[in-house]
Order: sequence, then C-alpha cells, then structure tokens
Amino acid sequence: MRNLKLTLAYDGADFHGWQVQPDRSTVQCALAEAMRRVTGESVLPQGSGRTDAGVHALGQVASCAIGSSIPVANLVIALNDILPATIRVLQVEEMPPEFHARKSARAKTYQYRIYRGDICPPFLARFVYHHPYPLDEQAMMAAAGEVEGEHDFTSFAAVDAEKREQAGGNTGRTPVQHDQGCSNVRTIFLSQWGSAGEEFVYSVRGSGFLHHMVRNLVGTFLLVGKGSLRPDGIALILEAKERAANPGATAPACGLHLVSVEY
Amino acid sequence: MRNLKLTLAYDGADFHGWQVQPDRSTVQCALAEAMRRVTGESVLPQGSGRTDAGVHALGQVASCAIGSSIPVANLVIALNDILPATIRVLQVEEMPPEFHARKSARAKTYQYRIYRGDICPPFLARFVYHHPYPLDEQAMMAAAGEVEGEHDFTSFAAVDAEKREQAGGNTGRTPVQHDQGCSNVRTIFLSQWGSAGEEFVYSVRGSGFLHHMVRNLVGTFLLVGKGSLRPDGIALILEAKERAANPGATAPACGLHLVSVEY
Repeated sequence: MRNLKLTLAYDGADFHGWQVQPDRSTVQCALAEAMRRVTGESVLPQGSGRTDAGVHALGQVASCAIGSSIPVANLVIALNDILPATIRVLQVEEMPPEFHARKSARAKTYQYRIYRGDICPPFLARFVYHHPYPLDEQAMMAAAGEVEGEHDFTSFAAVDAEKREQAGGNTGRTPVQHDQGCSNVRTIFLSQWGSAGEEFVYSVRGSGFLHHMVRNLVGTFLLVGKGSLRPDGIALILEAKERAANPGATAPACGLHLVSVEY
Repeated sequence: MRNLKLTLAYDGADFHGWQVQPDRSTVQCALAEAMRRVTGESVLPQGSGRTDAGVHALGQVASCAIGSSIPVANLVIALNDILPATIRVLQVEEMPPEFHARKSARAKTYQYRIYRGDICPPFLARFVYHHPYPLDEQAMMAAAGEVEGEHDFTSFAAVDAEKREQAGGNTGRTPVQHDQGCSNVRTIFLSQWGSAGEEFVYSVRGSGFLHHMVRNLVGTFLLVGKGSLRPDGIALILEAKERAANPGATAPACGLHLVSVEY
C-alpha cells in the first residue's frame, strides 16, 4: 500500500463541513467518492481536522493508503476532473507509512476575514464576515496578543463538544480534542490582526485548535472591539477554563479559512 | 412619482439570470420583492439589459418609479438588508422622469475572465471560465481588434433569439435587439484582451450588445486562440451576417461580468 498526502483547497459555502455525514454533502465524502471512481478502492481520507459547515480551506491536508499504482501527478488531474469545481486537489505526495494527516500535524494556520466596508461586494459574501460597524482595531490587536503562548483553551472550546462526547455513539469523532490528546492545552505561536484593503484579518498559527476555537477567539475579540471587554479580560477568561466564563459569541463560519497545516 | 436609478452588483451563479421568470429565482424578481417590502409598492425595476443565468454584474443599472419619499441613502440600506448577500445595491439616485435604464443607455462595458492556470482556485470557480490549455494569446488580441467600429453583429447573436421573437407571446421581451431599435448594427468602441495574473481577460465597450454577443465573440476568439481560425477570419464572419457562418461556440456564462453602463 502507498500512503498518500493530499493537499486541498475548497470553498466550504455549499458543504456541510469536512466530515462524512449521512445524506449530506461534505468535502470528505466528495473526496472519498472521487478516490473510489479513480482507483476503484474504497478509502476514507482522514483530514488534519474537521472544518465546520461553511468554513473554507486554502491548504487542508488529508491522508489515505491506496493500492493503486497511479502516479501522483495523474491522480491530481483525475481527482480534479471528478470533484466539483469548489474542491481542488492542489498536490498529492507519497509519504512514509507512519504519516497521518491529523496525528502528524505540528502546526496549523487559520485566517478569519472581516469585511469592514459599508457594502460587502457580492463576490466576497461567501468568504468574509461583513461587519461594517465601529471597531476599536487597536484594542483587538492587543487582545489577540494575549492568547499567544501555551494556555488551556477550554473557555474558547465549543460547549456542545463535551455533551456530544458524553452522549457517545460518535465513533471516529473526537470533538473536544480533535487535534491532540485529551488536554485542552494548546500553544499559539502567532495571533494577530492586520488590515488588508477593506478587510480586517485575524491570523493565528498554533500547535492545534479545539472545536470552534478560532471562531470563539474572533467572537471574543469582537467584544473587545466593541468596547464590551478590555483586552486584559482575555487572561481572566482563559484562567476560568469554562466556556460560560466567555461572553463572546461564536463568529460566523463564512469568514474562517484553514490556510495551511505544517508537518 | 420619483424616477430612480439603481446601480447593482451581483454574483449571478445562483440566479436564473436578470429577467423575471415564473417559479425561478432571478435578480429582477429579488429586487422587485425587496422594493415591495421597503416601499409597499409593486414595481418591476427595468434593467439596462438582461444578463443570462450565471452571468455576474459589477455595475448593472435598473430604473423604476416609486411614490415613496424614502431618502435614497436609506433605500440603499433597507434594500441591502432584505436582498440576499449575492445581490448588493451600490447606489440609488433620483433621475429626471425621462431616464430609463435600457433606453437611455449609451454604452456598456463587459469583461470575460478566463483562468489559465492548471488548477483553478475554488474561490474563483464561480467567476471565471477555466481554460488551462494552450492559446495563442497574440492571435486572440489581433482578432479582438477586428470587431472594433460599427458592424452588423448578426453572426454573433443568439440563434434562438429570432425564433423566440417569431413565436410571439414574449410581451415586454425584445430578444434580438434588447438594446437598440430593430437593427443588429452596434458600435464597439474598445475590444481587447489583457493578462492579469493567471487570468486572460477580454474587455469590450460598445454602444449595445445583442443577446449572447459577448459570449459568442469570446467563443470565436477562442477558436482563433486554438489555431482553428485566423484573426482576419473575423471580418468574413461579420460580413456573412448569419450565426451559422460563425463556427465559434457560446462561451460559458460564468466568465462574463457586466462591468458598467454609461448614460
């Protein structure tokens, strides 16, 4: 068997996220179906992590083992021929047997795009969160810096995650800690806001991310931007280690982009 | 009554074109419904011309008369609140009573975007035609120049247009000459191809355009790019004044953008 690493980009607007779900269109499902049609083999490519419905990827990574000897360059062409235009395989590489898209990941980078202009161009509507109201961008930059370093991010994890796990029956699904072990401790190497034209963009690179973590960070930074929370309030929220201690909402999925996964 | 000029941008991918159709989602229909909800008045905004299903607009113009005294700036905000994010009202202006979006138009500019790279980014898939195969771009530039000036463009008009008109029953619809009078003569002020990153983009500005005219021009220029037609063959096709004399296909709708309408 050959162990493959697939690098993918997708427009997540029309998908119910990455993960296979019954009777729903997902990226993983579309990829598995394309692999089956190209190679004749039933495989379920494992992603570096799930992306939620509506979340986009510039460089998601998936891995799977196949028996077929089709050259990797041909596999890129054949998969893209079958996949919808909203999913593109950018690269396929042959890896050592121990490589696993999720378990081998050492860092991930996400971006969250906020469109600040009064009228959001319809061509960007799928890819940004439109927030034309006043924001204290300096305060948001200061708040972003507060999460750099190693922290327990329970206060920024999806509340439903633990419930779903307790409910059981989610075989193959590890909602709270889909990146690493059973701890909610993650290391954030970089966390910053920057302006790009009419957009205010959050970039975050970390060892791993809990479910909804980036969207919850952005939701909390937005509270800081609106003046409802001081930048140094972030430290208190982190210390509380519970989602209920965090007054921030989960920012909409459409603004989130998985930029890259490092190994 | 106040006569309004509305400037609109839309992502046409999810609409069955501009024109109202029974049981189908169209831009004109969405705009009429939004106007009704904002003003309480039933009006059917008239566009500068129809755009086909999948065609986009950066600056489509529509006009309609309303009794409501709502200020134009408030109308922009209220309409955008109701319209889907894929349609945006960019501006509303009050015009003299004789202004009509179609009849008063003096020139229109379209662009047709071809993505030339091997793998089309999923974020562009709705907005470009992906053609990664070899094209003689110099020959296409020469061919584009051949249509500048005043010509009868019957050879570049949709073949179904005349049939539909003969069939009758299309009240309010003027398929062959939806821009000007009953002639197929139009003046093209500018017709050129240019490179923009991985894209090869056709820009055309003219006094008016027949149904499918820009997409048929692009389809014929693509034949030139593939070496199946010489640039000077364009003149012969124009002279023939029949669609059957033009071997070019109609280029896909997704690459076409109505850029602006001049008055």
